[in-house]
Amino acid sequence: MRVVDLEKVMAMYDERAALAAVERAFVAFSAGRAQIGDAGHFTFDAPGDCHVKAGHLYGDDIFVVKIASGFYDNARLGLPSNQGLVVVLSATTGEALAVLDDRGHLTSLRTAMAGMLAARAIGYAGRGVLGVIGTGTQARLQADFIARYLGFERLLVWGRDPARAQALAADLAGEASGLQALVERADLIVTTTPSIEPLVSDAWVKPGTRIVAVGADGGGKRELDPAILARAIVVVDSAQHCLDVGEAGWAARAGKIAPDSLIELGTLLGAPRAFGSDDLVVADLTGLAVQDAAIAGTIWRALNDSASG
Amino acid sequence: MRVVDLEKVMAMYDERAALAAVERAFVAFSAGRAQIGDAGHFTFDAPGDCHVKAGHLYGDDIFVVKIASGFYDNARLGLPSNQGLVVVLSATTGEALAVLDDRGHLTSLRTAMAGMLAARAIGYAGRGVLGVIGTGTQARLQADFIARYLGFERLLVWGRDPARAQALAADLAGEASGLQALVERADLIVTTTPSIEPLVSDAWVKPGTRIVAVGADGGGKRELDPAILARAIVVVDSAQHCLDVGEAGWAARAGKIAPDSLIELGTLLGAPRAFGSDDLVVADLTGLAVQDAAIAGTIWRALNDSASG
Repeated sequence: MRVVDLEKVMAMYDERAALAAVERAFVAFSAGRAQIGDAGHFTFDAPGDCHVKAGHLYGDDIFVVKIASGFYDNARLGLPSNQGLVVVLSATTGEALAVLDDRGHLTSLRTAMAGMLAARAIGYAGRGVLGVIGTGTQARLQADFIARYLGFERLLVWGRDPARAQALAADLAGEASGLQALVERADLIVTTTPSIEPLVSDAWVKPGTRIVAVGADGGGKRELDPAILARAIVVVDSAQHCLDVGEAGWAARAGKIAPDSLIELGTLLGAPRAFGSDDLVVADLTGLAVQDAAIAGTIWRALNDSASG
Repeated sequence: MRVVDLEKVMAMYDERAALAAVERAFVAFSAGRAQIGDAGHFTFDAPGDCHVKAGHLYGDDIFVVKIASGFYDNARLGLPSNQGLVVVLSATTGEALAVLDDRGHLTSLRTAMAGMLAARAIGYAGRGVLGVIGTGTQARLQADFIARYLGFERLLVWGRDPARAQALAADLAGEASGLQALVERADLIVTTTPSIEPLVSDAWVKPGTRIVAVGADGGGKRELDPAILARAIVVVDSAQHCLDVGEAGWAARAGKIAPDSLIELGTLLGAPRAFGSDDLVVADLTGLAVQDAAIAGTIWRALNDSASG
């Protein structure tokens, strides 16, 4: 069993390869060519939370177990908030092949990739105003991936802490904004907060808006007024997982959407469709173990190639 | 993050401490003082399967993620069938503190401990005939723990492969037996196979028999005729988990038992009760992440004590 430190993991990281693998993984998942499991959302007094997910893409010679956590007072101890690792195991012998001590970086990256892939799949054309809600790691990464792969003309940032919003906006050549103004102006909204109350009011959302909701993934988290989903086309990474822990679940439990109306992202990536310019489209992303299996698989293969090269 | 190899893990293993921790963990779980998660039962073509479980006992400064697998053709490759590891993480910072490369040994041990604790809790008095069904690692370990902590007067062993049953019986100073004869004669029966069909017929089971069913834990596994549970007092490690993947689930889905009739082992360990000498009592054990958290916690504390001692 090989332990691979963060520096080596990132030295092996090939963004194009990883992005292609994550996209293929969504397609495989929605086609039933994967097994995934989720040990749920653990919460700690610290405060902190942790996700444990396991995934195997059928045909792959590896499967992975991913642990990713956020402990929000770690900065006071001089530690990063994000922690975690990925265990790569042989799908033919069960042996643990490697522990990727990625400190949650691969999870952050595959989550940002999913946001960009979803934005593209729901018809964001790479023009107009991008509104980012939140100021953390995902806010930055989502904006970065969208900037580099899709583009935008103007970037607005809102966060609960105005100073952090100003700082992130400055880093990304965007502008800090009020929340309502951001929602009203944006063509693509990406929500990235751990809020447990809806932040985005239905009344603010204009027809044609595209929303990628990244925050809600368990533990009571939610960012969108369910009324938004009621009038939207709703795309989900996993119908079951989003009904359990995503925005779709809140809307379904409120009777606002029919569970069978959901479109899986992998289905949409496999068979792209056009949406109308006035269609409101929401992508609800909760995070799937196949994404972890895909990105970790590219690191593992790169390690092997570099060892034998 | 410290990687601890199997030899060091076992050097830190203190059976009495681990057994006490596992017993406390069952009690804490049934009292609602733990969070656990299960990423489910993964199956592989090899053939192989894998469980991923995560557990935290409230108040503990660590939580654990356990990976344990069985790949049944590994012997052909000169590898052990059981593989796996336990990741020990800080419940205050999320940091991965240690990877215990235990190759599934801690899982095997905590499973055997649960069997012995359950046998005692359901009123097996340590006398009479112990019947062990199965010839693998668990068959051997269950017999060993029962021998050392509870006792028996006579040991019968049945396995699908008579040569293996003979070999195990010889090792344990017992006797190989036919299956029906074993069930008819045993006072305590421990079932340890990966069977996906019932092995033990209701007609063979006499009043007063105590059964500890260890095999069924997902993937369609089952060992007992549901009619046995219909006339038994049924003890479960977790009501929810046993209804999902245990013998109790098969019996409940067949309409043979009421889900609310189940007694959790932790409740019984916390408040022991006597059973009648003619009561048929079944303990259905599916394996809980709190057992993993408990046994790994004793290893982790011993490592720290040995480092600072």
